[in-house]
Parts: sequence; C-alpha cells; structure tokens
Amino acid sequence: MAEPLVVALLGFGNVGSSVWQLIEERSRRLGWAAGRPITVRRALVRDPGKPRPVTPPPGFLTTDLDEVLSDPAVEAVVELMGGLEPADTYVRRALSAGKSVVTANKELISRDGPELLRLAREHGAQLRFEASVGAGIPIIRPIEEMLVANRITRVTGILNGTTNYIVSRMASAGATFREALAEAQELGYAEPDPSDDVEGRDTARKLAILASYAFGSWVSPDSVYTEGITALDPVDLGYAAQLGYAVRLVGTAIHREAGIEARVHPALVPQDHPLASVRGPANAIFVEGDPVGELMFYGLGAGGYATASAILGDLVQVARGSRPWRPEPRSGAEAAPVLPADAIHSAYYLRLEVADSPGTLAALAGAMARHGISLRQVLQMRAQEGRAEVVFVTHPAGEAEMRQARKEIEALPSVHRVASLLRYHDGTHGNPPRRSTGPSGTSA
Amino acid sequence: MAEPLVVALLGFGNVGSSVWQLIEERSRRLGWAAGRPITVRRALVRDPGKPRPVTPPPGFLTTDLDEVLSDPAVEAVVELMGGLEPADTYVRRALSAGKSVVTANKELISRDGPELLRLAREHGAQLRFEASVGAGIPIIRPIEEMLVANRITRVTGILNGTTNYIVSRMASAGATFREALAEAQELGYAEPDPSDDVEGRDTARKLAILASYAFGSWVSPDSVYTEGITALDPVDLGYAAQLGYAVRLVGTAIHREAGIEARVHPALVPQDHPLASVRGPANAIFVEGDPVGELMFYGLGAGGYATASAILGDLVQVARGSRPWRPEPRSGAEAAPVLPADAIHSAYYLRLEVADSPGTLAALAGAMARHGISLRQVLQMRAQEGRAEVVFVTHPAGEAEMRQARKEIEALPSVHRVASLLRYHDGTHGNPPRRSTGPSGTSA
Repeated sequence: MAEPLVVALLGFGNVGSSVWQLIEERSRRLGWAAGRPITVRRALVRDPGKPRPVTPPPGFLTTDLDEVLSDPAVEAVVELMGGLEPADTYVRRALSAGKSVVTANKELISRDGPELLRLAREHGAQLRFEASVGAGIPIIRPIEEMLVANRITRVTGILNGTTNYIVSRMASAGATFREALAEAQELGYAEPDPSDDVEGRDTARKLAILASYAFGSWVSPDSVYTEGITALDPVDLGYAAQLGYAVRLVGTAIHREAGIEARVHPALVPQDHPLASVRGPANAIFVEGDPVGELMFYGLGAGGYATASAILGDLVQVARGSRPWRPEPRSGAEAAPVLPADAIHSAYYLRLEVADSPGTLAALAGAMARHGISLRQVLQMRAQEGRAEVVFVTHPAGEAEMRQARKEIEALPSVHRVASLLRYHDGTHGNPPRRSTGPSGTSA
Repeated sequence: MAEPLVVALLGFGNVGSSVWQLIEERSRRLGWAAGRPITVRRALVRDPGKPRPVTPPPGFLTTDLDEVLSDPAVEAVVELMGGLEPADTYVRRALSAGKSVVTANKELISRDGPELLRLAREHGAQLRFEASVGAGIPIIRPIEEMLVANRITRVTGILNGTTNYIVSRMASAGATFREALAEAQELGYAEPDPSDDVEGRDTARKLAILASYAFGSWVSPDSVYTEGITALDPVDLGYAAQLGYAVRLVGTAIHREAGIEARVHPALVPQDHPLASVRGPANAIFVEGDPVGELMFYGLGAGGYATASAILGDLVQVARGSRPWRPEPRSGAEAAPVLPADAIHSAYYLRLEVADSPGTLAALAGAMARHGISLRQVLQMRAQEGRAEVVFVTHPAGEAEMRQARKEIEALPSVHRVASLLRYHDGTHGNPPRRSTGPSGTSA
C-alpha cells in the first residue's frame, strides 16, 4: 500500500469538521482516487475546550502551530481560518516547510496568490483553492483543464450568496436593504459584520481570482471597480421589474485588447436570463470562451458541506501530485493592465427627481445628447406636488461620458436629484459562440 | 522535447475540421498542458474530393482505415463519424491496436461503453468521451474528479438542443410541433431525419451515460423510460404557462435504494426554475450530490466548435496519461437494477375533454381518489356545445396508480377523451443540500 497523505487542518469550525467527517466516512473512494489513503492527523484551533458538534479523538485538537508544521508526516495543510492574519503567516510557513496547502481563503489568495504560488513552487509544494470561488461549484479546474483549448474572453456572475439573498428578498418582499439584511442575519446567511459582502469586496476578490485564471494574468481585487448593494432602493427594483429586469450584484471581467475590464456592481439582468433565476444564497458563474461559447456553472456558494466537497477534490489532486495544465498567471510587470473604471461601457438606468414643468425632459435629453448618450426608454412616473420621477434607460455608453452627463444634469435648475444610477448586465447570453480567428487563423 | 502525441481523425466534417484547426492554432498551449506536442497526422474520410471549408495539406485525407491503424506513430484516434456502424468496428479495431480513442459518439458509448472500456484497459489504451454529453460543457470529468467525495443522488436536465429549440418555439410562437420542427430544420438545428431527437432517444442515451458515471453503475438507454415531444400540443403549453410552468424535454435519473430510476419525457418546470430559462439549442444539467448539494452546468449542447473544446480537453488528458479517479461503472450482473416505469413517482397534469353536465367533475375526482391520487388544482376551461375542457394537476402519485386511474376515467360515459398527460419535473431546486449520513456516519 502506498504511503498515506497525512493532512492537518488549520481551523475546525463548520468547514473543517465537515472535511474531517467526510474523510472518515468516504475513505475508500478518496483513497482509490488518490492512489493512497488520506488521513487527518491534527486540527489547529484556538480553544480546544469549546463545545463542538462533532467529537474528534483525544489529542486531535491542538493550539500549537509548530506541532503541526514540525511533524514530518504532515504533507498537506488545509487552511480554513479565513481572513488575512494569522492565515497568511501560517500558509507561508506551511509552504516554506514544503507542505502543500489547500484553502478556501479568497481574501488571502486574491491578495497574495502570485507570491504564495511562487513559494509553493520553490518548495515543491502545491497550492490549491478551488473552494475559494463558488464553494463546491467546480470552476477553477474546469477553466484550467477542461477548457484548456479555449481563449476565455469573459467571466461574469453572481459570486456572493449573502448579497444575492438580500437583493432577492428586497425584490420579492419589497423590503428595504436594512430589513432584508436583518432577515439574512437572522437566517445565518449574513455575518454579524456583513460589510465585506454588502459592499461588494467579497465578490471583487472572487472575481479577481476567476479572472486571473481565466485570462492567465493576475488581477488585484484593489483594481476592480467595486460598488455594493447598500444604496439599493426597493423603488428601483420595482421599476426594473416593470421594465422586465431583475437586479443582481454581478461581477464581470472582460479580456479586452487594451487590457482587463473588471467590475462589481448591481446590474439589471433581463428577467428571462439565467442569472435572474438565481435566487437566495446560490452562485452562478458564466464563462465565455472561444471555441466553447457560453457556459454557466451554478450551485450553492457557501456552507460547510458544499465547501468541503471542493476541499476534498483538491486534496485528492494534491495526493496524486499531477503537474499543472497551464502556466501560472502572469504577475507584476508581465501582467495585463487592468483598465480604469472610465473604460466601462454599459447601458444605464437613471432615476431622477425633477420639476414637473415644461421643458424639463428636453433639457435632460439635451444634456445626455451633448455627451453622445442616446436614450432607449423614458418613463415618466408619479407626479405630485410639482415633482415628477423620470426613469431613463440609455443605449450603451462610456462611463466617463455618463459621469459628465450626470454632472450636467445635476446642475440643471429643474433637476432635484439623480436618485439612482444602475448599470445593465453586460453579457452576451443567447448569442452564438464567436471564433476569434478565421478558419485559417494562426499561432497559439 | 518529449515525443509528440500523434492523432488521427475518423471523420473530417464540422467537428473534425474544428479539432484540426484548433490543434494547429493553439499548439503552444495544448503542448504545455499535455507536456508534449499534439499533432494530427491523418483524417479518414469517405470522399477526399468533396469540397470542404478548410484545406488540409496534401496526403492528409485518406479513405483507408488500415493506413491509419497500421501507423505505429498514431497513438490516439478521434472518432467523429457518429452512429453505430462503421464507428463501432473502427473504435474496436483502434482500441485493440492499443490506440486511445476520444469520441463524441453517445449512441456508441451508451450502448457499448462497458465493453469498449474493457477493451481499452486490456490494450493499455484510454477511452474518453467528455463531448458525448453536452458538447463543450464540462460534465463527465467534474463528476468523476472534482466531485469525487460526493455520493451523487440525481442527474437531471435538458440534454438535447434540437428538442429544446422546438419546445421553446412552440411556447413562444404558439406553433405546432410540425411548424416548429420545420423551422428548426431550416435553421440547421434539426437533422433531415430528426426522429432520434424528437422521440427522446438522443436524450436517453446522454442520460444513460451521465447516470452511469454519476452512480458508478451502467445504465442501458434501452432501460430508460422514453417519451418524446411529437405528441406535444401547444394548447397544453398555454395552460402550463397559465399555471406558472414551462414545458421542457427533461431527462432524469435518480439513485434510489431499490435501484436507478431513469426517464425522459416532457416535463412541467416552474417558470422561475433555472431550467425554464434554458431556451433555444442550449443544454443544462443538474447534478445533486452529498455533500455538495445542487449544481447546474449549462452551455451549448452541440456544434463543431463547442464539441471540439471537449475533444481537445480529452486529447490533452490522453497525452498526459493520468490514471482514473473512479473505478469503471459496474456492469452486467454487478450493475444496480434500473427500475421499471411503474416505479416513477410524479405529479401529473391531465387535460380531459368531458361532457359539460352535472356530476362529471365528481365522477372524475372519485376515480382519482379510488387510486389514492389527490388533486392539487382543477381548472375548468372553455365549455362549448355541451363539452368542457378540464385540467387536473395532481399531487405526486405512482405511475401505476395513475395508469389505473386513467383507464377508469376513460371508461366514464361523461369523458370524451384524455387529451394529454404530462409529468412535473422532479427536482429539488432551492432545497438545502442533504447529507445521506449523520455526523458520525460510517463507511465509504
């Protein structure tokens, strides 16, 4: 029998205990796939005395990282603490000790991926993080391996279950953001401090990891234009529904000639688009490639068991020790530039509070036209006490032009305020796949 | 430099020429992934003089299989002829000569998979067929590898783009089956002889392959209860829409304690279910596993380029020569039984033409009740010239009971005919993932 892969867990909460249970329960099939047994020797925790839903054997829990790292039998470490510290230090120490690392930590990977991969390579270890995006949804390995022949041009989707639950509830129950957030917290879908989720940072991190692997060039989450859902008004969800759209927090990355466009913001999605049917805490990721066309991967985006599914797939991969299918994404000076927010090109939804007086609409339309923005739909809603609400839907326009037009509009005497500005989802759903080169195209 | 993987193509139509082009265009990235170059040496065709959209080098096309199989340099064969013969003979000869085979041929794999896998194993060759289900959608390897820790309990979805296009058109344009089929043929979405598609056999073959890999036990397409879309009436699509449902041709396989339930039939899908947003020639496959919960994989289900994407992923896998992640599905006496159609348990939609007279509804409801079938919804529509149309929606019931009740209903003097009977989609969309064992469960 081949030598077992001995694993240590850093963290023994929801995910960690699921990983441990599954390795115990499914040892035969995991061992078959890995070509050798997989066993968990230890789990690092802060408080071994804390009551837990599962009871590991005596001596299993430890508070001493050195005990884990100095054990020569431990070949792989599963990091499930989350956050930057102490996870970052622990992962670096594990890799430097030649131990492979499997992690679900999107914050860490999106910030330090290139350096951690280099560290792994230098010490003959593997670093795997399938669970960091979309929990149990297979996405990183399909992009790396099964789609190896493809030039991926776009990744886009719903990458955060907490915000998707909140936005779905705001639409279905007419709830405000605060009300829907409180409900999500009660149900355990949102953390006590939900700011990383609701401000879009969690989505930006996952998008950055996806884009890095899809395009072969590291994208920093700091370079992703990021707008969360805290300012979403149920009024706009209602108008959007009237226009035939659902609103979702969508992350989109596009590989353009000039560089990578990457952004996270609430987006209007046609009601019959598959993204609109993603409700509650689910995630859905579109990948557009040449020659494969458009693919979608959908599933639960969080949870101990779903995350454990991906962790175990990665652990088997570590045990098999197979070589990578693609070069590491380029980083530093070799990376493709990430385009500034001004490069965004989108159709826009604007809601304005204006004076209900003659000439107002003409002035508004004129301001848009001066910046080359043409209108697709204009709705004039509820006029009361001399005020009207106007909703504009524009044809695709540049972000810079839109900002200029908005400034000009806000300066108009008949405009009370621009109550909201939302972008349309930039997807190509339903279009046939495109080839980027002709039948006699050249080079790889 | 490592020895190249030399490939021969059997067939050089749409898919074959796409595969050839992509291998030429993307040689660098394919070679990197494979660890050695991949080159195409030859393509077997019936008529080398036929005009083609691409021009291969002189001597590339051949009509002589022996020339391909006797070439010791050819290590892998890509079979793209489709159908059973001569594909079956050629694949067997290639495997027996120790050449690995990559194929998109679902008819062949679903019928002879176990035997062909055995042949491959005996001659040290690989047999890969990711493209046989869902074209470029990564599905077989995600099930085999990334979901290795899961017990998969259900696979279900839209597996045939032709019928999905037809059914979508019937619903959106109120077209009859014949009209929508003619349109699909004009657009190239349907073959001149569409019977394998519209009678559900193509879906049954793909479902059989999926179920075999998901459950680790071969399912013969002949044992799949199969009902196509030829009898679908646009009237029922209209009523279904009124009730909040779309109709799709769905294949469903469930791993039950007693055996495997496998069926293909038109199904009512809630309009807000992701399957309902799958329109036109797309495919969507749900996989339900413990612990991962519900996943969906979506994309184009046909086409030369999309299929080539999967073929190339398989070719790289052949070039890498990695060992499998799971045992071959059990076959013959060791396979799990496939349950008879009577074991189906479903909610039903029935449309009846009845006499518009007192007591009719009571008689109908009574017949249902005598077989333990309870009603969820009753709609009485259009009464004219003494006739009424009644639509029943039942709670889940057994297929055998439903058949008995139907017989009894058809014998009632007040019943003109049972105009249609449709089943509801049996999915668990939106439910939390289930664990099949408790926290201290045992065995793998």
